[in-house]
Amino acid sequence: MINTVDYNLLIGIAEIVGTAVFAITGAIAAQGKRLDIFGVVVLAIVAAVGGGTVRDVILDASPVFWVANNTSLYVAIVSAIVAFIACRYLSYPRRLMLILDAAGLALFVVLGAEKAHSLGMSPLIIVVMGCITGCAGGLIRDILTREIPLILHAELYATCAIIGASYYVLLADHLEHNLLALSAMLIIFVLRLAAIFGDLSLPKFVMAGHKLETPEEARDHSIR
Amino acid sequence: MINTVDYNLLIGIAEIVGTAVFAITGAIAAQGKRLDIFGVVVLAIVAAVGGGTVRDVILDASPVFWVANNTSLYVAIVSAIVAFIACRYLSYPRRLMLILDAAGLALFVVLGAEKAHSLGMSPLIIVVMGCITGCAGGLIRDILTREIPLILHAELYATCAIIGASYYVLLADHLEHNLLALSAMLIIFVLRLAAIFGDLSLPKFVMAGHKLETPEEARDHSIR
Amino acid sequence: MINTVDYNLLIGIAEIVGTAVFAITGAIAAQGKRLDIFGVVVLAIVAAVGGGTVRDVILDASPVFWVANNTSLYVAIVSAIVAFIACRYLSYPRRLMLILDAAGLALFVVLGAEKAHSLGMSPLIIVVMGCITGCAGGLIRDILTREIPLILHAELYATCAIIGASYYVLLADHLEHNLLALSAMLIIFVLRLAAIFGDLSLPKFVMAGHKLETPEEARDHSIR
Repeated sequence: MINTVDYNLLIGIAEIVGTAVFAITGAIAAQGKRLDIFGVVVLAIVAAVGGGTVRDVILDASPVFWVANNTSLYVAIVSAIVAFIACRYLSYPRRLMLILDAAGLALFVVLGAEKAHSLGMSPLIIVVMGCITGCAGGLIRDILTREIPLILHAELYATCAIIGASYYVLLADHLEHNLLALSAMLIIFVLRLAAIFGDLSLPKFVMAGHKLETPEEARDHSIR
Repeated sequence: MINTVDYNLLIGIAEIVGTAVFAITGAIAAQGKRLDIFGVVVLAIVAAVGGGTVRDVILDASPVFWVANNTSLYVAIVSAIVAFIACRYLSYPRRLMLILDAAGLALFVVLGAEKAHSLGMSPLIIVVMGCITGCAGGLIRDILTREIPLILHAELYATCAIIGASYYVLLADHLEHNLLALSAMLIIFVLRLAAIFGDLSLPKFVMAGHKLETPEEARDHSIR
Repeated sequence: MINTVDYNLLIGIAEIVGTAVFAITGAIAAQGKRLDIFGVVVLAIVAAVGGGTVRDVILDASPVFWVANNTSLYVAIVSAIVAFIACRYLSYPRRLMLILDAAGLALFVVLGAEKAHSLGMSPLIIVVMGCITGCAGGLIRDILTREIPLILHAELYATCAIIGASYYVLLADHLEHNLLALSAMLIIFVLRLAAIFGDLSLPKFVMAGHKLETPEEARDHSIR
């Protein structure tokens, strides 16, 4: 069944959905920050196209994807406006934001790996570009809003991206395109959800004789 | 009268003045941060050429404007040194910094829109490039000095840039060049001053059942 | 004796050592931040290749050096893993991190100036590119980990980079290549160590009637 779906259509849908969910996380991140609608739109655009922009600039894939085709910008703008209005009537969606961010991560890591693969890059660069595309937009969003970057304190964040992109690289020549992309997205999304809701984690970086911040302390730092 | 002014001269002057005022905001932002003169110069350069650099990198307008022509760098360096010395004898110019920042914003938004327009970009990209050129330098300055980015807490900051750039795009084919650029700059500058001194603002982004930070709280966060 | 060393070999060694020490500072900066091994690797890579990436993107020296040749990435990954494991058994190396950062700064400033020089850039651009290559990686590392950027509060940080790069430019046509590169690196490293351990400093930026943060206050801000 998967084989009958047009591949470009699949990638196109993934790009639009990923852009929309990252834009919404950007808009949600604006909460309590005294931003008016235009400021929220700016933050949404940065979150939605930031990762792909860094990827295209480093790969010198000129012009940058949203300069060549403005669809991503329009999707981000509309998503931000909808989120701006909806958030006036809904309660604080911290958990929703984490889930949307996980979905955006899954979609964008695979799209980034895809693009590097199509440009004939080495396996290591494909993995790096997958991670950049998936993580950089949310990273810039978090820096702008002075939150601790999710990639720095959330469980398994970079790990999910690296595992998903490595899976993509390893099976790139063995799996059918659609199946490869969809399964890689699913792996990243499920892993990240498991990390969020199931407390899945790897050993942390600890200095000898040094105490680790609890998640609460880390969150406190970001609130202050 | 305006028609008789040489257009390139006007743009050249706008670029130098914009560079100087943003460089000075960069130097002022260094206050109390234990920077010596070289550190202040670095911060001034980043504030002055950061926006145009991001624009040129994304548009792949190679080489970046200040690599091709070093005038902007010299202007930023001299402005920073003058500000470094002057600030030892003048009192804390927070209000001055806001006004200079508004002037730099007005000049750079129009210059950025101008450049994208001359490269034949679509209207949406022209507006985005205007905003990037106007806002990115100050944004990086605020991130480096760990202040809350003005674009995130100042009234109407992104809004002024978007309105000015949209005005530029809408009237690009109807107004004489000089008049278009000057009027767009004036609109942005006056709007931003009105926002600073007249408490002009748009509805803020509020979550249901969620309290908004007061400007004092926002400022406290940046001071801590 | 120095003349007999192959120049490319010298540059190659400097690049690997610089990459390794910056990667280790990135890994050390992850301490107490709840990062697992993949997160630490990401931070190490950013610290190690960030400066050269910004340089290559601005100079449009396509492709970016680590996309063309993946050695830097492998060096950064291995260094990060070694640091990750070693730090579990060693005590908190704040002083070590400062020394390693100084070494990375010295190596990368000269490598950056070198690259701009080989591309035929003007003296001012050579100095700027030396500073960007030396400082930007550490800067991004500090922003991501929410520390005050060293360039903003450490004594003589930007100053060492500017002096070293200026020395390189001034003597570029008068000294033999190897001697020039080595002596410039030595100058930067010694100056920075003198600043760290000898309290060497320049006049600070002070506003009239304004108090300067003490280093302790600055550090407190970063800890909070």
